[in-house]
Amino acid sequence: MAEDPFLSRWEDNNGTECQNQYMPAGRPSATSARELELVALDLFASQGFAQTSVEQIAVGAGVSKRTFFRYFESKSAVLWHDFDNEVDSLRDAFSRIPAKTPLMTAIHEVVLSVNRYRAEDVPELRTRMGLIGSDRDLQASAALHYDAWERTVAEFAAARLDQPAESLQPMAIGRTTLAACRAAYDVWLARADANLTTYLDEALHALSSGFRTPSK
Amino acid sequence: MAEDPFLSRWEDNNGTECQNQYMPAGRPSATSARELELVALDLFASQGFAQTSVEQIAVGAGVSKRTFFRYFESKSAVLWHDFDNEVDSLRDAFSRIPAKTPLMTAIHEVVLSVNRYRAEDVPELRTRMGLIGSDRDLQASAALHYDAWERTVAEFAAARLDQPAESLQPMAIGRTTLAACRAAYDVWLARADANLTTYLDEALHALSSGFRTPSK
Repeated sequence: MAEDPFLSRWEDNNGTECQNQYMPAGRPSATSARELELVALDLFASQGFAQTSVEQIAVGAGVSKRTFFRYFESKSAVLWHDFDNEVDSLRDAFSRIPAKTPLMTAIHEVVLSVNRYRAEDVPELRTRMGLIGSDRDLQASAALHYDAWERTVAEFAAARLDQPAESLQPMAIGRTTLAACRAAYDVWLARADANLTTYLDEALHALSSGFRTPSK
Repeated sequence: MAEDPFLSRWEDNNGTECQNQYMPAGRPSATSARELELVALDLFASQGFAQTSVEQIAVGAGVSKRTFFRYFESKSAVLWHDFDNEVDSLRDAFSRIPAKTPLMTAIHEVVLSVNRYRAEDVPELRTRMGLIGSDRDLQASAALHYDAWERTVAEFAAARLDQPAESLQPMAIGRTTLAACRAAYDVWLARADANLTTYLDEALHALSSGFRTPSK
C-alpha cells in the first residue's frame, strides 16, 4: 500500500474539506475503505484471518471483489493499512521539516505529528495486534512493514548526516526509533489510559537523551 | 532452547577445560551439537529448510533422531541456537556486572562481552540469515527469539531503575538495544571487513549518547 492515495481513518475524522483536498476524481470514497476495514476486522475476529476470504469481506460490505482490490492489494493489507499509511505520512512530514531543526528533534517532532491514536482506539488496535499475532503469514510479513518505516527514518537521517542510508548511524537511528515507538505502543496498549502521543513523547525523549533522563 | 546447557561453538573454540566445566555428566558432547548444526545448515542450504527433515539431519550426522532432540528442541532451533545461547550468556553476564557501573555502560559492556563473531564467520551467518529470510515459519518465529533477548536487557534495566520490567523505560531500553545491535549486525554482514564487535561498539555508543556523537 505504499502508494495508497486514499485517506486513513484519522484523516476521515478531520472532516470533509481535508478529504476533498486529497481525493482524486473518480476514485472510490474513503468511507468505503473504512467500511471494508471494519467488515474485514469483524470477520477476522469472529472466524479467523486464514478462514476469511476477500470475497466474504466484499459481500459483507456490499461491494465486488474488484472494488475491494481498488482499496487493498491483499487481505493482509487491510491489517497493515494504518501502519503503511503512517510510512507515507512520515516521508511527507520529513520533507517539510525545517533544515535547522536538529536531527533527533526533527525525528521526534515528525513521529509525533503523524500519530493520531487515542485511548478510545485501543480496543480496535488490540484486536488488530491479536490478529497479527495469531497468524504465521501475518507475523512473517511484519518485518517487511517495519523495514519500510525504519528505512524512511534512516533515509532522512542519512541525508542529514551526508552518509549512505545503509551505513551504521542512519540504520541504527531508523531501527532504534521504531524500537522506541514499539515499546511506547505496547505499554500504551496495555494501559489504555491516555493518547499514544504521551507514551511516544516519553520514549523518543529517552532515546534522544541516551536514556540518561530520570524515569517518570 | 532457553535452558540449553550445552556449549556454543565459540565456547568450543576455547578448549576442553571450558567444556568440562559446563558439561553435565552423561550429556552428549558439544562437538556433536556443532556437527549436527553443520550437517543441518548444509542440508537446509542445498535442498531448502522446509524440505529437510530432522531424520535427514540425524542420518547425515550418523546419529538417531532421539539424539538430535537431545540437542535441539526442533528443526528451527538449529538456526536460532547461537542467538538463544547469547540470551543465556547475556543474563549470566548481567548478573556479574558491578552495581556501580552505570546502566547504559553496563549494557554496552555486557553486549560486547557475549559477542564472539569474527569476519571469518560471515559466510556461515549469511547462509543462516538467508535461510531465516526464505521461510515464512522461520520469519514468523523471529519475533519470539528477539523478544527473549530484549526482555533480558529490559529486566536488567528495570532492576536498576527500580521499575517493573513492563514499564516504558526498561522496555524502550531493551528494544532499542537490540535494534542498535541488529543495525550493527546488518552493516557488518554487508561489509565483512572486521569483527562484529567493532560495529556493535559504535552502534551502542551512538545509542547511549542519544545519537549526538559525530559519525565515523
